[in-house]
Amino acid sequence: MKDLKLSVGIDIGGTNTKLGLVNTNGNLIKRVNFSTNPLLRFSDYQALLTNALEELIQGFENSDVLGVGLGVPGANGNTGSIPEAANIPFLSEVPLKNVLESAWKLPVFVAKDANAAALGEMLFGSAKGMQNFILLTLGTGLGSGLVLNGKIVSGSNGLAAEYGHSLLVKNGRWCNCGQRGCFETYVSATGLKRTALSLMAKSNQYSIMREIAPNDLDALKIAEAGEAGDELAKKAIEKTAYWLGSKMVDLVVLTDPEAIILAGGLTNIGDYFLSLTKVTFEEKLLPMFKGMVKVKYSSLGSDEAAILGAASLPMNA
Amino acid sequence: MKDLKLSVGIDIGGTNTKLGLVNTNGNLIKRVNFSTNPLLRFSDYQALLTNALEELIQGFENSDVLGVGLGVPGANGNTGSIPEAANIPFLSEVPLKNVLESAWKLPVFVAKDANAAALGEMLFGSAKGMQNFILLTLGTGLGSGLVLNGKIVSGSNGLAAEYGHSLLVKNGRWCNCGQRGCFETYVSATGLKRTALSLMAKSNQYSIMREIAPNDLDALKIAEAGEAGDELAKKAIEKTAYWLGSKMVDLVVLTDPEAIILAGGLTNIGDYFLSLTKVTFEEKLLPMFKGMVKVKYSSLGSDEAAILGAASLPMNA
Repeated sequence: MKDLKLSVGIDIGGTNTKLGLVNTNGNLIKRVNFSTNPLLRFSDYQALLTNALEELIQGFENSDVLGVGLGVPGANGNTGSIPEAANIPFLSEVPLKNVLESAWKLPVFVAKDANAAALGEMLFGSAKGMQNFILLTLGTGLGSGLVLNGKIVSGSNGLAAEYGHSLLVKNGRWCNCGQRGCFETYVSATGLKRTALSLMAKSNQYSIMREIAPNDLDALKIAEAGEAGDELAKKAIEKTAYWLGSKMVDLVVLTDPEAIILAGGLTNIGDYFLSLTKVTFEEKLLPMFKGMVKVKYSSLGSDEAAILGAASLPMNA
Repeated sequence: MKDLKLSVGIDIGGTNTKLGLVNTNGNLIKRVNFSTNPLLRFSDYQALLTNALEELIQGFENSDVLGVGLGVPGANGNTGSIPEAANIPFLSEVPLKNVLESAWKLPVFVAKDANAAALGEMLFGSAKGMQNFILLTLGTGLGSGLVLNGKIVSGSNGLAAEYGHSLLVKNGRWCNCGQRGCFETYVSATGLKRTALSLMAKSNQYSIMREIAPNDLDALKIAEAGEAGDELAKKAIEKTAYWLGSKMVDLVVLTDPEAIILAGGLTNIGDYFLSLTKVTFEEKLLPMFKGMVKVKYSSLGSDEAAILGAASLPMNA
């Protein structure tokens, strides 16, 4: 039997760099990780990345490797460079695609992390076979990936899908981007935490969360508190689901997607959050869209999703 | 010299049905109009439409007619039918594409009016040659057409681009769709009028507009009042431009378009409205998008735009 074609997916984050060898069935065959040291110069990072790549494909020299896909926050999918890599300073303004392609003699594809993840969902995950869907990754921030007419929407400058910075609340919370009221300041793992803090400020109501230092609070702990009957935690989750469900409606009237896929740390809250989100969403949809749009969690393991997404880039080229 | 290929564009509205013969350079060669009687049965309307089509192509029997494109409010571009034709009851649930194609023995294309208009802008108008742009038609309501990756976004059910019903103001004005605060209740010719009325209600400030019956007030009259120094009229225009500029920002972070094209009755206000809109828009854009997105009026005559858009459908097939 002939070997399946293989693809390398690389997820470059501010903390870790994760490489994976993936076959065209979406199986992650082998992994190599190393920690991203943000103080490096790019040339040193490139050497580490090349070593890791060699280790990854060792033993697969006779396989047909389609190429290397990189998912990078803030990447410009049209140019293959990273205009502003806030958490990974050594990547800023590096023409990543060109540099790595000429060094590695392999086709290299670079995309914004959320766009790569959306492609992964289309090939292997919850959006398998769909031509029109939206992925929202609810983690530290809110990432968004759009697939319309079967293609990733990267925009005229490669900058599309920054929907985390759309407006949710006029004069609302400050965002790292310098604006106020951005969607991601409310709907993300960080947003949920801010909502919990805001609720703790607004009343003196008892809450287990008052025993946890804000830096130690996360979506999972808030979910556990809620499950244990903590009223403030439940309220924080309910508000977050309400904001998400309301804003998703705007995406539907614009793009009429088959599904909206949710991924990232906030989805660790589980079915409670998903069903609350669906209730608001269905209630606020225009009649013509009611019951038409699937809302579901990513079926890809959160640790693997980014690698699978990046590995999808060469497969979809 | 060989004749250019021709295409028939039909703009079906609640008041008039307009047909035009258009060449591939976007020249409107011949027109036929008749008034749409909403009380007709579909079979009678079809007979009128067929007569008008025959009159239109009379004398062009030897030309190469690519097909007939129809732009219809509320049309489903995927099925070629009109699920709910609010103002044209006899079209409801008629499988328009199939019926006309088998009657006329010509390729027939049906699209939502705003989507057809967007295609017209791409082939002949302000978005000529662009692969990624958004058209907003600001008339009685607010229509929207998206072109991304060079293709009309019609969505998974053919229902995309109802952005007039996205949320602008929570618990805001009632919309015909049954919801509150929809974008089009503020930003459209009708929205401007409502804003003028609301301002007249809020104060007793002098305004020429108080001499005009609300049913006689329109965007042009409000613009004239503003030009004559009417403070309330100016304020109504300023607020409308502010709402439009703010909401356009959300479209940009999602889709990174090359341009946003504005058309429809509200644009009759002219440069004053356009420049105010641009000021808010640029001010609220994320830094990475500042200065990157063109905002301009449609260059197609408002009377011709709908016909040219519909005629574009067979040309782009």
